Amino acid sequence: MPASYAYLGPEGTFTEVALRTLPEAATRELIPYVSVQSALDAVRTGEAEAAFVPIENSVEGGITTTLDELVAGAPLMIYREVLLSITFALLVRPGTKISDIKTVSAHPAAQPQVRNWMKANIPDALWESAASNADAARLVQEGQYDAAFAGEFAAARYGLEALETEIHDAENAQTRFVLVGRPARPAAPTGADKTSVVIWQRDDHPGGLRDLLGEFATRGINMMLLQSRPTGAGIGNYCFCIDAEGHISDRRVAEALSGLKRICLQVRFLGSYPRADVRVDGVRPLFPGTSDEEFLAAADWVTHCQDGRF
Amino acid sequence: MPASYAYLGPEGTFTEVALRTLPEAATRELIPYVSVQSALDAVRTGEAEAAFVPIENSVEGGITTTLDELVAGAPLMIYREVLLSITFALLVRPGTKISDIKTVSAHPAAQPQVRNWMKANIPDALWESAASNADAARLVQEGQYDAAFAGEFAAARYGLEALETEIHDAENAQTRFVLVGRPARPAAPTGADKTSVVIWQRDDHPGGLRDLLGEFATRGINMMLLQSRPTGAGIGNYCFCIDAEGHISDRRVAEALSGLKRICLQVRFLGSYPRADVRVDGVRPLFPGTSDEEFLAAADWVTHCQDGRF
Amino acid sequence: MPASYAYLGPEGTFTEVALRTLPEAATRELIPYVSVQSALDAVRTGEAEAAFVPIENSVEGGITTTLDELVAGAPLMIYREVLLSITFALLVRPGTKISDIKTVSAHPAAQPQVRNWMKANIPDALWESAASNADAARLVQEGQYDAAFAGEFAAARYGLEALETEIHDAENAQTRFVLVGRPARPAAPTGADKTSVVIWQRDDHPGGLRDLLGEFATRGINMMLLQSRPTGAGIGNYCFCIDAEGHISDRRVAEALSGLKRICLQVRFLGSYPRADVRVDGVRPLFPGTSDEEFLAAADWVTHCQDGRF
Amino acid sequence: MPASYAYLGPEGTFTEVALRTLPEAATRELIPYVSVQSALDAVRTGEAEAAFVPIENSVEGGITTTLDELVAGAPLMIYREVLLSITFALLVRPGTKISDIKTVSAHPAAQPQVRNWMKANIPDALWESAASNADAARLVQEGQYDAAFAGEFAAARYGLEALETEIHDAENAQTRFVLVGRPARPAAPTGADKTSVVIWQRDDHPGGLRDLLGEFATRGINMMLLQSRPTGAGIGNYCFCIDAEGHISDRRVAEALSGLKRICLQVRFLGSYPRADVRVDGVRPLFPGTSDEEFLAAADWVTHCQDGRF
Repeated sequence: MPASYAYLGPEGTFTEVALRTLPEAATRELIPYVSVQSALDAVRTGEAEAAFVPIENSVEGGITTTLDELVAGAPLMIYREVLLSITFALLVRPGTKISDIKTVSAHPAAQPQVRNWMKANIPDALWESAASNADAARLVQEGQYDAAFAGEFAAARYGLEALETEIHDAENAQTRFVLVGRPARPAAPTGADKTSVVIWQRDDHPGGLRDLLGEFATRGINMMLLQSRPTGAGIGNYCFCIDAEGHISDRRVAEALSGLKRICLQVRFLGSYPRADVRVDGVRPLFPGTSDEEFLAAADWVTHCQDGRF
Repeated sequence: MPASYAYLGPEGTFTEVALRTLPEAATRELIPYVSVQSALDAVRTGEAEAAFVPIENSVEGGITTTLDELVAGAPLMIYREVLLSITFALLVRPGTKISDIKTVSAHPAAQPQVRNWMKANIPDALWESAASNADAARLVQEGQYDAAFAGEFAAARYGLEALETEIHDAENAQTRFVLVGRPARPAAPTGADKTSVVIWQRDDHPGGLRDLLGEFATRGINMMLLQSRPTGAGIGNYCFCIDAEGHISDRRVAEALSGLKRICLQVRFLGSYPRADVRVDGVRPLFPGTSDEEFLAAADWVTHCQDGRF
Repeated sequence: MPASYAYLGPEGTFTEVALRTLPEAATRELIPYVSVQSALDAVRTGEAEAAFVPIENSVEGGITTTLDELVAGAPLMIYREVLLSITFALLVRPGTKISDIKTVSAHPAAQPQVRNWMKANIPDALWESAASNADAARLVQEGQYDAAFAGEFAAARYGLEALETEIHDAENAQTRFVLVGRPARPAAPTGADKTSVVIWQRDDHPGGLRDLLGEFATRGINMMLLQSRPTGAGIGNYCFCIDAEGHISDRRVAEALSGLKRICLQVRFLGSYPRADVRVDGVRPLFPGTSDEEFLAAADWVTHCQDGRF
Repeated sequence: MPASYAYLGPEGTFTEVALRTLPEAATRELIPYVSVQSALDAVRTGEAEAAFVPIENSVEGGITTTLDELVAGAPLMIYREVLLSITFALLVRPGTKISDIKTVSAHPAAQPQVRNWMKANIPDALWESAASNADAARLVQEGQYDAAFAGEFAAARYGLEALETEIHDAENAQTRFVLVGRPARPAAPTGADKTSVVIWQRDDHPGGLRDLLGEFATRGINMMLLQSRPTGAGIGNYCFCIDAEGHISDRRVAEALSGLKRICLQVRFLGSYPRADVRVDGVRPLFPGTSDEEFLAAADWVTHCQDGRF
């Protein structure tokens, strides 16, 4: 029996498409789960080797269900991330013309992305929410609705055809997915990595959060995500999910995490993994004084001073 | 015709209860709307004087629908906030015993708050999601479900009785609501106020956000909420919704906002209004050097120096 | 009787030369005083309109006598500064050859600047300290010593001739002088100005001084001098003399000074005046968000928000 | 031949008295030198094991001669410090009455400390500067002057008697001396230590110095001295002599020094040694998160994360 990856189902969604871009997915059994929580629970119980779930998108920001699962419960770790551009196709039963469309369905998350297109092209069509875009396609296949917004890849699976593709109100609409497993030694640094942590403040005072962010800033580390999540201790009590540039084996990152560990109430490490968003112009150059070589040279110098050899 | 307040409906929800705690609500017509967006649109179009919507709760954190509406579109302003402790009653048709309950319904947001209680008391009951807790109560009245979780106040409206009250898994479960209107002169400071803004960073670099937060920190201003929201410009692009202590007419706050205005790409003022969360032990004392008197004295001194009178 | 400028005498020193570079000196009576203290006292008593004294040089750093006089006592204000490159001439009685020189004299402060030259050219000559370089020249005139290090300009006054000029061990040896008067409205900003203050910390704690310097840093203001001086309250108790870029009528400087005033135990303003050190490549461009226009625009925006017009 | 300590002479000065408070001085030959420079050179050449020189006093601040010698040339290290309260005795030849005193002598540095006393008690006496207080006492012995201000201990040596003791205009007048040797392993930490370094900035920009001081501040380390000294590269070019709380073997100090080493152009370590100024109320408690135990625990945690054991 091959190892399996759980993923947020159903089949035929953007999540599955994103998962299949990972080479390691080709050698695993891919099993859809009904919720992020159940997919991650499958990892925690050992039922699945890892789970693949959305964590951030350009419309909603951080996916709170996923973040809250990572923040609490038995520790999990992010192994990989995948970025997927999200564009929709308008799927219909073969033969349907655009003027025939009276009802259209999709997951509510799709709505902000297709609203303008609908207004311009099918202004009178009625919107009906579905549990997922794949489900909407299935309901079109079964004749309940006239059209569905879904990934173009879903057409074949449900015997539909795409009247229109590349529908997306916002440019650069993307969703970020993560492959999450049990704690393990992070993959080796690639030179373009990202580190995720959750931090809880010791107490709340003017400058408190600024000083925590200072642990990254003073070591030249850029932050890529800062998402507050309630701690459950009452309104106004938040922890912060942070994605920062670099790998925990980079000395600047290790020292920053160590600094956070000292001054925070609690820090949860969520993994170091290759960045999926490296642009054509490459990775930001390091700030002066923050390379591993400079950290090592400085530590050596301190040791020499401690030994009286200077 | 009296001025009206729009609120997130339907009638008989916690939102309506919270709204009715405001003295000014007694003299307005209170009109339920089907969504946060439609309630706020009613304000923007002039249909309503103000809208009353949830903005933060202790389980979900910032309510993204509300924040996103405030961040974009025609400017709105927060006039007031209300904090409501959320506890549920188990509502049934008169005569129903706890052992009779096979199905139970509520809005999905209620589920995390009653899950443990259900496991302990009605472990075999089936959960059915409803569009609102009030809707669940109505469906119980109509006989579709056996019980609903809702505010105790909903019992009378739907002819139900409360088998149990004060159900809440998490201590301190609260929701914060805001009364939102068109831009106007903020209410006079009370000595325990809060100021809300949205900031957009000019560019993204190590220490960028830390320096923005420094505008508050160096003036001794505590932050009470920091919620990132996507800007729509693609994944990883965020603006930040911030609640900070103090009133825009406080000099420390005015100078901090002015500083943000200078160094941010954009700042949106969302209002200064009385804090609903002032504890029995009162408001945090000001940091040395941050009172209005000290700001005035310092500005006077600079003027004297500029005039050569020192 | 013309107004007079006091200066650190005697006549014929670099101080007098520097003073005469000021156009306003041409219309004043220039009176040498025996000490910095007596020259500044002449200003305080009204005996002189202003005093011209050295305040910093590239070998000694801040001239502590001058700084201590400005830090304490009745307030004074810096009106102008002058930078003078310091090079020495070797002055002898006419006819003296370099091989005749057995004794050489100058003020002790000259010694670090001529030591290497002496070693290379008159290694066997005996050094004799004088009260001033001008005094050394006079003693050579009177036959007491064979040669003096002094400004070339002193040769004519004392009937000596310069065997060698442009003597200076260190490149870029310069002395900075200031014209100090009673408090008055500072000269109008020129676009390349400097502001001097003295600050006393409220208490001593980790980060205390860093936060004070932050008042300049967060407003993009570069510091050009930071010189600690004892407060007299016992060892380890210091105030700080600071020169910063900009003019007190610049909004970024006014706000920084105001911030210092609020959080320091005490701040003494020492003046805003044109910089003498502006290099060929001109003045450092302002940091984004720190121009007067941006300060004004931001203050306007805050006022609009306070008025509900946004 | 015993090992020798060089000290700033002549014999019979406060320096010698301070040196003799060190237990180790009892077993060394103590040799006076004519200048700080010559005493430190004796260490550099190996002629002396260590040198004892003044480094800071409550009237002058940092002693620039000493600091400049430590900043440049072959590296030296501070082994110990001594604090001495400075009060003067008025020494006269036996039989001299206060009304007989026409002339009084001492080193110029004594003048600010006795000026008020002279004005009140011997207003008509003429001040004559001497090369040292001990020298002044010798000249009184020889009959050249009527009285000398010196340490009371000098009376016996020069056959004089003290007409008055405990003369000091300023309360808390103290001088700090250091025992300086060649680089060696610093003495073990005592729990109340001090670390001295010199730092050179990489370049000069707004916030540059603030960020350097931040290396101490963010690790909860208090600074006790910050003295700028010219680098010799021209006016306005300074390095900074810093005394900070803690020992280089304390992890917070080691990490701060390592941070400075990375971001400064140059750092010179001047030693870690027991503080002489620990008050009766003891050492400041550590900031939360800055103890060795917390540093070690945090580093352990990072290692566990790097290994996937969390």
